[in-house]
Amino acid sequence: MITVHGMSLSGNCHKVRLLLEQLGRSYRWTEIDSAHGATRTPEFLTINPNGKVPILQLDDGRVLAESNAILHYLADGSSFLPGDPWQHAQALSWMFFEQYSHEPYIAVARFLSGWTAADSPRRADLPRLREGGMRALAVMEQHLRRARWFTGENYGIADIALFAYTDVAGDGGFDLSAFPAIGEWLSRVRATPRFVAMPAVGADVAARLVLSD
Amino acid sequence: MITVHGMSLSGNCHKVRLLLEQLGRSYRWTEIDSAHGATRTPEFLTINPNGKVPILQLDDGRVLAESNAILHYLADGSSFLPGDPWQHAQALSWMFFEQYSHEPYIAVARFLSGWTAADSPRRADLPRLREGGMRALAVMEQHLRRARWFTGENYGIADIALFAYTDVAGDGGFDLSAFPAIGEWLSRVRATPRFVAMPAVGADVAARLVLSD
Repeated sequence: MITVHGMSLSGNCHKVRLLLEQLGRSYRWTEIDSAHGATRTPEFLTINPNGKVPILQLDDGRVLAESNAILHYLADGSSFLPGDPWQHAQALSWMFFEQYSHEPYIAVARFLSGWTAADSPRRADLPRLREGGMRALAVMEQHLRRARWFTGENYGIADIALFAYTDVAGDGGFDLSAFPAIGEWLSRVRATPRFVAMPAVGADVAARLVLSD
Repeated sequence: MITVHGMSLSGNCHKVRLLLEQLGRSYRWTEIDSAHGATRTPEFLTINPNGKVPILQLDDGRVLAESNAILHYLADGSSFLPGDPWQHAQALSWMFFEQYSHEPYIAVARFLSGWTAADSPRRADLPRLREGGMRALAVMEQHLRRARWFTGENYGIADIALFAYTDVAGDGGFDLSAFPAIGEWLSRVRATPRFVAMPAVGADVAARLVLSD
């Protein structure tokens, strides 16, 4: 059975759980508290020298890093990834967009809002992150005005990749009401078979999120 | 014939040129000066709403964005991308590593050094970028101590993706002499059949690079 090393409240990790649930695959989940240094221990660095979760581990010990590479590996040959080369390429293109133009703004704004102290100097970065995140959301909105999904004709891994942090963008101070097509797409994703939501954050994180609004 | 819209001095764009040359494919190249706003014009934004190069365009007008998605599309089925699912996944993993943990530090440090004025406030970011870039280089060095390539058994698109900005990391103030395995890998890449180097920067950029050392 495969093992996922991940933090349940991380969007990058939740992507992998959501796909595995929707594929109906069995897996073990090892909780790693990356917000408190658990990916920087000598032990974890032997699993992933880049010090990040999620990690997919096979029974023979081999590991695969990078959330979107894990999604691609697990989905290949399934309905969650188009076989048509051009649509396949477009799905990958959105997944690289997610990691370069979306996650570094929207996920990092959420992290700073919920997991750093209210007086942390790192929070000075929030205005810049919100500007970049808004640009990414505008690109998504434009696509969704003429398409239902990001993976091609059907729901699939590019949607999962982009859903993870868009669905919790409010945690980082993003107001999605200006993006109606994104709102409808989020609802469509939540209505897919076997959908599972990310768990709610704990009281300590929730209190910080309210303060940082 | 396919068209590439790109800036020759951009590593992300050079990746596409290098693969096309090594595949022996014909292509048109449209030069886009992204360092001076050419990817933010209304005309270009109709091609890529995310305002970035490279873009691959087919004869029927369809476009594909994101350098590493373009590499994957062009290489699929060739010797530049392993057919074995696990090795294929590892190649993609390194390509996501490149876009998340490498390019945002090493390429951006090069851009700030060579394409912004010596007194630009953006240069205050250079120490942080150099720290992140050194972490990425250390991860690559560790891999290359026990493997010849990033794409699996053979040279391929994960090597091309990582080569592009590693080969010009010195432009951003990175000293590669502490990474001997990376140095040997760069030499192996340069020795592959039909290899083409990125063109040399112009005198104006070169002068700024010297000053920012």
